[in-house]
Amino acid sequence: MALMNENFNDVKQSYLFAEIAKRVKEYTEKNPDKKVIRLGIGDVTLPLVPAVVEAMKKGCDEMGVKETFKGYPDYEGYAFLREAVSGYYKSFGVEVSADEIMISDGAKSDVGNIVDIFSQDNVVLVTDPVYPVYVDTNTMSGRKIIFADSTEENGFAAMPDDSVKCDLIYLCSPNNPTGAAYTKEQLEQWVKYAKKQNAIILYDAAYEAYISDSSVPRSIFAVEGARECAIEFCSLSKTAGFTGTRCGYTVIPKELMINDKNGNTYSVYKLWYRRQATKFNGVSYPVQCAAAACFTPEGQKQIKANIAYYMDNAKVISAALDELGIKYTGGKNSPYIWLKCPNGMKSWDFFDKLLNEVQVVGTPGAGFGVNGEGWFRLTAFGDKENTAEAVKRIKSLKF
Amino acid sequence: MALMNENFNDVKQSYLFAEIAKRVKEYTEKNPDKKVIRLGIGDVTLPLVPAVVEAMKKGCDEMGVKETFKGYPDYEGYAFLREAVSGYYKSFGVEVSADEIMISDGAKSDVGNIVDIFSQDNVVLVTDPVYPVYVDTNTMSGRKIIFADSTEENGFAAMPDDSVKCDLIYLCSPNNPTGAAYTKEQLEQWVKYAKKQNAIILYDAAYEAYISDSSVPRSIFAVEGARECAIEFCSLSKTAGFTGTRCGYTVIPKELMINDKNGNTYSVYKLWYRRQATKFNGVSYPVQCAAAACFTPEGQKQIKANIAYYMDNAKVISAALDELGIKYTGGKNSPYIWLKCPNGMKSWDFFDKLLNEVQVVGTPGAGFGVNGEGWFRLTAFGDKENTAEAVKRIKSLKF
Repeated sequence: MALMNENFNDVKQSYLFAEIAKRVKEYTEKNPDKKVIRLGIGDVTLPLVPAVVEAMKKGCDEMGVKETFKGYPDYEGYAFLREAVSGYYKSFGVEVSADEIMISDGAKSDVGNIVDIFSQDNVVLVTDPVYPVYVDTNTMSGRKIIFADSTEENGFAAMPDDSVKCDLIYLCSPNNPTGAAYTKEQLEQWVKYAKKQNAIILYDAAYEAYISDSSVPRSIFAVEGARECAIEFCSLSKTAGFTGTRCGYTVIPKELMINDKNGNTYSVYKLWYRRQATKFNGVSYPVQCAAAACFTPEGQKQIKANIAYYMDNAKVISAALDELGIKYTGGKNSPYIWLKCPNGMKSWDFFDKLLNEVQVVGTPGAGFGVNGEGWFRLTAFGDKENTAEAVKRIKSLKF
Repeated sequence: MALMNENFNDVKQSYLFAEIAKRVKEYTEKNPDKKVIRLGIGDVTLPLVPAVVEAMKKGCDEMGVKETFKGYPDYEGYAFLREAVSGYYKSFGVEVSADEIMISDGAKSDVGNIVDIFSQDNVVLVTDPVYPVYVDTNTMSGRKIIFADSTEENGFAAMPDDSVKCDLIYLCSPNNPTGAAYTKEQLEQWVKYAKKQNAIILYDAAYEAYISDSSVPRSIFAVEGARECAIEFCSLSKTAGFTGTRCGYTVIPKELMINDKNGNTYSVYKLWYRRQATKFNGVSYPVQCAAAACFTPEGQKQIKANIAYYMDNAKVISAALDELGIKYTGGKNSPYIWLKCPNGMKSWDFFDKLLNEVQVVGTPGAGFGVNGEGWFRLTAFGDKENTAEAVKRIKSLKF
């Protein structure tokens, strides 16, 4: 008799965005004349830049001509794209070779599927509040999960505790949902901690393009020793508006090794390559062309203009919170603003207040973990005009 | 200490295509003047049809305009594509509703990732010779695998044996590598067998578009009772030349249920949806536009012309084998021709003979399993001119 993977019963149903959608729907049905502004969901709103669209269309055209048609892509991605990513790393001072880069259909797929190569006995450390994928994918494969607290006291940047033992460590910096970004010194502590116990850091750099502060590394590989203890996941979703176009990349240094129980040593890159060769068939050629266009001088210029647009929104939101005396993290090296609900309000109460009184939708921090209660996430990915209007409305609120 | 998933040590390194590449390279280096014709790898050679290219480019253009830009796609795929696939099934008499269809970046991803939702204790039945992904993905997750023999005697169409117990059954029809296609009566026996022991059939229909014989179903769901015991995987790779464009779909009927160990019952569709929502973020919008264009009247007409082109190649190869008195399966409802090496030759010996004497490259059957020894796969996916030339050369051989 076919039986299910019973670990699925331990995966928490994610009610967060469904519950938000439900409350917004109820409100708009009762108040059809009110204009609701959404600063909640972490999706981008600006279209793909012209350089990307042109490159993708050129890729489509090539697929329609016998001489330039492309069949099965390489599992690891086309060399032209991996070279471009390698050059991108170089532009901010990090050396990663093209044959340490594997292209995928998005960081979420890689962050989710990477668990396949690890023992089920590994203990997983995540910071709380947390992007739910780190927890859910490990719950599905039956691993024990422990938490490191990101709190107001540590600026929502959890730090390692030498007395805690773990085997896999998920870090996301700049962080989703808190917008906090680790400094080089903080990452050095994590690398030191990981190496001490032969743990592997799974580093999610999806928001690296929003970093402006030179003390905040764009990559874990800017930290000495990280090449022997870390995998980095990155994505074009937020860097270049690829949420609907789907392309990301994972960096596994050739030095990164892992043991079996008998102490034999294996290349993590080779294990991941084997996993991908077995369960994945590469990324669409026109999408890889589009992705490569992100790294040309023209593409970079256009993409950076979009990032600046979003960061202007972040500044508008931050300035209002400063004016209101509301505490927050993020908004500087991150498109997320993570604010403390005024007067000790709980996350969902603040959500209801914003929705009902000024028709602004955000994301209750409690949905991201225990330490998110009493906090609230706003995103800079909205329209300039809507963001300004939302901020004006929030300032009109009486707390 | 981070430890690897030790099941990876049990995954056989796939030397098949690497070994072919090595021998071809050695030969061409020694004989640079000889023109080698490849009828080995299962990749297509005709470009995407115009209707598909146009739709994909239109999708790209929409991504470049704010009003039509698309962010995160639905995990299950856009409704317009799922409706189109549902209509396609209807065109050959099978009722599958759009909300039983999940779009993905290719059948290989789904066939590979589906193992996530099943218990590791399930016993897996595969037919031998076999597409290696069924074996490797289950080896990686530590499942016991047993084999049903596809042999010359049963026309390389293994049938169930009631004395054999199993929980998951992989069937591929028309088959890769043997080209054999199950009749409706044969599939009815498999469905009966599966239902008797509450097993689930994982049905790979990647080559369904090559079926011309009305006794051969295009879908497992043409068989009564299959909706309660089967999942179907399909792909546009061979149907529409999407090997480099990447799009497929998986059908899970709403009736299909699975138990946990306590006898509680769960929807397989919901488990798979949950898996995809956690580890996947949907398919690129322009690619979904391209896929939908395959199912329009114009798209269908253009795609069917390409399939006819390949099947003309199959006829040319089959006619030559008939003339030479060489036994084979496939070539009728399949782009693969699976031939018995003449005079009791072994697969690799025949490979070397073809390469060295007439510079034609095929795939040794021994690479697909024990029952493949002494057999050899040719594909119809080549050029018309090259296929004719290869056949002429094979006919010149002395056996």
